[in-house]
Amino acid sequence: MTTLDELPIRDDLRGKRPYGAPQLDVPYALNTNENPYPPSEALVKAIGEAAAGVAGSLNRYPDRDAVALRADLAAFLDSDTPGLGLDVDRVWAANGSNEVLQQILQAFGGPGRTALGFEPSYSMHPIITGVSGTRWVNAARDDDFGVDPGAAAAAIAEHRPDVVFLTSPNNPTGTALDPAVLAAVLDAAPGMVVVDEAYAEFRRAGTPSALTLLDGHPRLIVTRTMSKAFAMAGTRLGYLAADPAVIEALLLVRLPYHLSAVTQAVARTALAHGAELLGTVDALRRERDGLVAWLRGEGLDVADSDANFVLFGRFPDRRRVWQGLLDRGVLIREVGPPAWLRVSVGTPEEMNAFRTALKETLS
Amino acid sequence: MTTLDELPIRDDLRGKRPYGAPQLDVPYALNTNENPYPPSEALVKAIGEAAAGVAGSLNRYPDRDAVALRADLAAFLDSDTPGLGLDVDRVWAANGSNEVLQQILQAFGGPGRTALGFEPSYSMHPIITGVSGTRWVNAARDDDFGVDPGAAAAAIAEHRPDVVFLTSPNNPTGTALDPAVLAAVLDAAPGMVVVDEAYAEFRRAGTPSALTLLDGHPRLIVTRTMSKAFAMAGTRLGYLAADPAVIEALLLVRLPYHLSAVTQAVARTALAHGAELLGTVDALRRERDGLVAWLRGEGLDVADSDANFVLFGRFPDRRRVWQGLLDRGVLIREVGPPAWLRVSVGTPEEMNAFRTALKETLS
Repeated sequence: MTTLDELPIRDDLRGKRPYGAPQLDVPYALNTNENPYPPSEALVKAIGEAAAGVAGSLNRYPDRDAVALRADLAAFLDSDTPGLGLDVDRVWAANGSNEVLQQILQAFGGPGRTALGFEPSYSMHPIITGVSGTRWVNAARDDDFGVDPGAAAAAIAEHRPDVVFLTSPNNPTGTALDPAVLAAVLDAAPGMVVVDEAYAEFRRAGTPSALTLLDGHPRLIVTRTMSKAFAMAGTRLGYLAADPAVIEALLLVRLPYHLSAVTQAVARTALAHGAELLGTVDALRRERDGLVAWLRGEGLDVADSDANFVLFGRFPDRRRVWQGLLDRGVLIREVGPPAWLRVSVGTPEEMNAFRTALKETLS
Repeated sequence: MTTLDELPIRDDLRGKRPYGAPQLDVPYALNTNENPYPPSEALVKAIGEAAAGVAGSLNRYPDRDAVALRADLAAFLDSDTPGLGLDVDRVWAANGSNEVLQQILQAFGGPGRTALGFEPSYSMHPIITGVSGTRWVNAARDDDFGVDPGAAAAAIAEHRPDVVFLTSPNNPTGTALDPAVLAAVLDAAPGMVVVDEAYAEFRRAGTPSALTLLDGHPRLIVTRTMSKAFAMAGTRLGYLAADPAVIEALLLVRLPYHLSAVTQAVARTALAHGAELLGTVDALRRERDGLVAWLRGEGLDVADSDANFVLFGRFPDRRRVWQGLLDRGVLIREVGPPAWLRVSVGTPEEMNAFRTALKETLS
């Protein structure tokens, strides 16, 4: 029997473990920031019809450039944030925003290049960076999980990164990005600036999207996903908006026909039902705000959240709390800074179960 | 307006053009080696039902490890080549064999490492190699598109590649791999050996699959696809068989949840209808052999083909021939060595159209 250690894998992969939260079958899964509300029966039917609609030509390759889907995504962003004037040439899509991010690193990172992020943040950023052969630099966040504009500019001046990652709202802390930080980073960065807005639809009123800065910033890339607010995690559809030249760059590294005909059809169907899918966002925001208040009422530290999850603590032995919840059927995520835990915002019933389990665990 | 040249893309990407055959709307598309026979009405219906079956939980992430699909793929390979004894631990799947190949390069290639192939061969091998930051070495094929075992061993001894690519049947030449070459390469290679069997189902009787050598060769990887014989190009499902330790290595670089719930369900449905889909292989083989004979009868040079395409020539101005066919509604591929052209094997009607158009073009 051969072991992994005996294979000639890349040296920097040795000793690493696969990324991923445990996929456990539990009554209350609050660990991967999914939208808890499933598609309606009408949408389920429409998705089946959409798949059947393309099935008759599945012997043929899909549209390599996914033009119709990208046009729909551009129209969605334009309706969400009027005045953007986006079109198909400024929008790109792939199998989840992970693949979008990987393509960005493949085009603008690589051997001899550097990417910089502000941790704690989405843990796939350094992983995808490393797999692409790019060096990772962590410019740490403040104790309140914010980023100081001056410190960000100084870190960029020191490391001259080819790619800068900002995450807004930030995962796993929930922190929205101060527009002054984005302005400072755009001003200082010698390379590309990626704002990962996977959770943007959940942000509180008054927090701008980086989409509004695309004009005049050809090195800015804003990534989005249909996995979170859009309740389509199983469909794997991430996308980005950027200057048309950025899309041209990604065409040099994307795998041809990377998006299946079925994915394109299902995603377009979901976009056509966008009002239904995004109709749960307000309820989730209210549930989140209630959860933050309740946790604080319990005497816990809680990070402000503009996302569909809440980071709370602090626990000298967070593993014990995580296990106590799991023993009661509630799976949350052991992630982020030590002593903190992250819980996804679910349905009222799921949140009741979480609160009950947490009280029992902490008592 | 920003141009691609003004963006800070990787230096080795500068001046490159996106991979891909023209996607033109023509009466006879014989350029991407698709299976011309579409799914039956029964399969179309089953695919729609499979998509609807998972649509109700698309708000949740898919099975990250695609265990049920991989088990089905293992069972298919086992039924195709009895005695393999494959199981889920020895099979891996991704969005097309391009993504499978990319994951192999990410795990076993990378900066400072080398991959070697025998060109002319599948042109994505050097492209994926380059994007992964791996150096590419071309050990050229013989004039008859074969590989000499001694020359292969010598090239490997000289370059000490971390990854060796063999393609059988080879694209774009159609050439089956001499088992003596594979034996010599497995013996000489210091790293991984990838046998790309995208077209394996079309090979002529008596040509063994490299699958039969997996036992005892933990550094051998055999890749397959559902895009060709399986007539599922639009589904984007590639897979591989290898030692379980190889799968462990790929888990370190794969993007989490890379395979959508819909892709997993559609691919499983297609596998359940495997008899229908693969039922066209014999007809395509006969059509191919007839095409080879006809082209030779026309006085052309034709490479022996074990695939669902035929490489023929030689034309001092192949672009003129390609354009002449296109002007008559027949799209083939300008690929491979200069003076040669590649045509996919289609239905009898499509082949008639090709023959008529070629005769007109050459007259």
